[in-house]
Amino acid sequence: MAAPVKLYGPPFSTAVARVMVTLLEKDVPFQLLPVNMAKGEHKKPDYLKIQPFGQVPAFQDEGVTIFESRAISRYVCDKYANQGNRGLFGTNPLEKASIDQWLEAEGQNFNPPSSILVFQLTFAPRMKIKQDENLIEQNEAKLASVLDVYDRRLNESKYLAGDDFTLADLSHLPNAQYLNGTDDGELFRSRKNVERWWGEVSSRESWKKVLEMQSPPAPKKA
Amino acid sequence: MAAPVKLYGPPFSTAVARVMVTLLEKDVPFQLLPVNMAKGEHKKPDYLKIQPFGQVPAFQDEGVTIFESRAISRYVCDKYANQGNRGLFGTNPLEKASIDQWLEAEGQNFNPPSSILVFQLTFAPRMKIKQDENLIEQNEAKLASVLDVYDRRLNESKYLAGDDFTLADLSHLPNAQYLNGTDDGELFRSRKNVERWWGEVSSRESWKKVLEMQSPPAPKKA
Ligand SMILES: N[C@@H](CCC(=O)N[C@@H](CS)C(=O)NCC(=O)O)C(=O)O
Ligand SMILES: N[C@@H](CCC(=O)N[C@@H](CS)C(=O)NCC(=O)O)C(=O)O
Repeated sequence: MAAPVKLYGPPFSTAVARVMVTLLEKDVPFQLLPVNMAKGEHKKPDYLKIQPFGQVPAFQDEGVTIFESRAISRYVCDKYANQGNRGLFGTNPLEKASIDQWLEAEGQNFNPPSSILVFQLTFAPRMKIKQDENLIEQNEAKLASVLDVYDRRLNESKYLAGDDFTLADLSHLPNAQYLNGTDDGELFRSRKNVERWWGEVSSRESWKKVLEMQSPPAPKKA
Repeated sequence: MAAPVKLYGPPFSTAVARVMVTLLEKDVPFQLLPVNMAKGEHKKPDYLKIQPFGQVPAFQDEGVTIFESRAISRYVCDKYANQGNRGLFGTNPLEKASIDQWLEAEGQNFNPPSSILVFQLTFAPRMKIKQDENLIEQNEAKLASVLDVYDRRLNESKYLAGDDFTLADLSHLPNAQYLNGTDDGELFRSRKNVERWWGEVSSRESWKKVLEMQSPPAPKKA
């Protein structure tokens, strides 16, 4: 058997989790290599050789190194086209284009407000960093208008790019999961089609597996 | 001859210009359809049918509609693989992955500070909107650290993804052009490899053509 691909970074990171769920959908075995961000390992010279911006994740497959979670995900779908979920990134150029436009919409429109809100509402309190109320309000408004567009789209089609679950839906999972654990979950639940869609995408087996890997079960009693 | 593809939006828009230069590199004839943003045409129901976020550009090719400038550019490269600049999006999965990671770096790391700076330094004064000095300073610092990474990368390879000009370099042209017309051009000129790279990418024939289309020559004297 070929050596499993390597994914560097902690599973709680949204960008790392995006690649994990892609690999699970595609049935690609992978080895998760820890990067201790609290100790600043992602800014050390050795790590910067594989991810020059000093961020997680980084990815290696047979001597090829790739960074950027969405680029890694597209690569995994192309390279492992014939295994696992074959339609994840479409099976012809037209399907691919439709998936890619909604994947870009995630990266350009959904991710910016979402990642700020995830940090402010979930990580800042844990790290004892003061929340910025203005920033939260501004980004809730931005996210709401993105979700309005999604709600109309999901009134016409089951998933963002059409009838099937694809990379476009998948890419939303990590941020949406954190947000649905905060008061901002209301932004999803108050939109009928978004709520239905979130119910469907968040119950994928691949995603449940990622959630398990994010929070390992309590150690067994001795 | 097939009907030319349609691109909706004004050529001064950075996202529209990104698609224009892709189409020119790929020798794909196109028809540029005006969208009067000053009149809010991009928020009208008819336009929202083809670009649900109410932004430019939108693109149509034989009944297929696509939005998001980077998704359109990838589609054009895939569909018209065998014409114009054939290496623009690589010729095998590995080259594609390298191009895609730097294209994502542009969309995720370079574009956010750049597009804020382009608005603040170029459009705000023309629109008589007060500049936000704090925002400018913060984003100059972000852009500087992205360009530090680029400078190291461009010390190792001629272009971002390797020896050839690709979609990854191309995608920087619209924002970088505006920035190089402001004091922030210094951020490019003060980095030896970035300066060399900018000289090369900005002198492509395709890009010069876009610049001409952005500022039509003065009407001939009668
Ligand atoms: N655009 C990158 C973003 C990666 C990213 O933001 N990673 C975060 C963790 S989710 C990180 O490494 N933050 C530390 C830092 O930026 O210094 C991707 O999608 O891979
Ligand atoms: N991510 C989009 C961004 C498009 C975008 O920001 N377009 C601007 C002009 S450069 C726009 O339409 N602004 C008007 C608005 O957002 O209301 C793309 O790359 O196509």
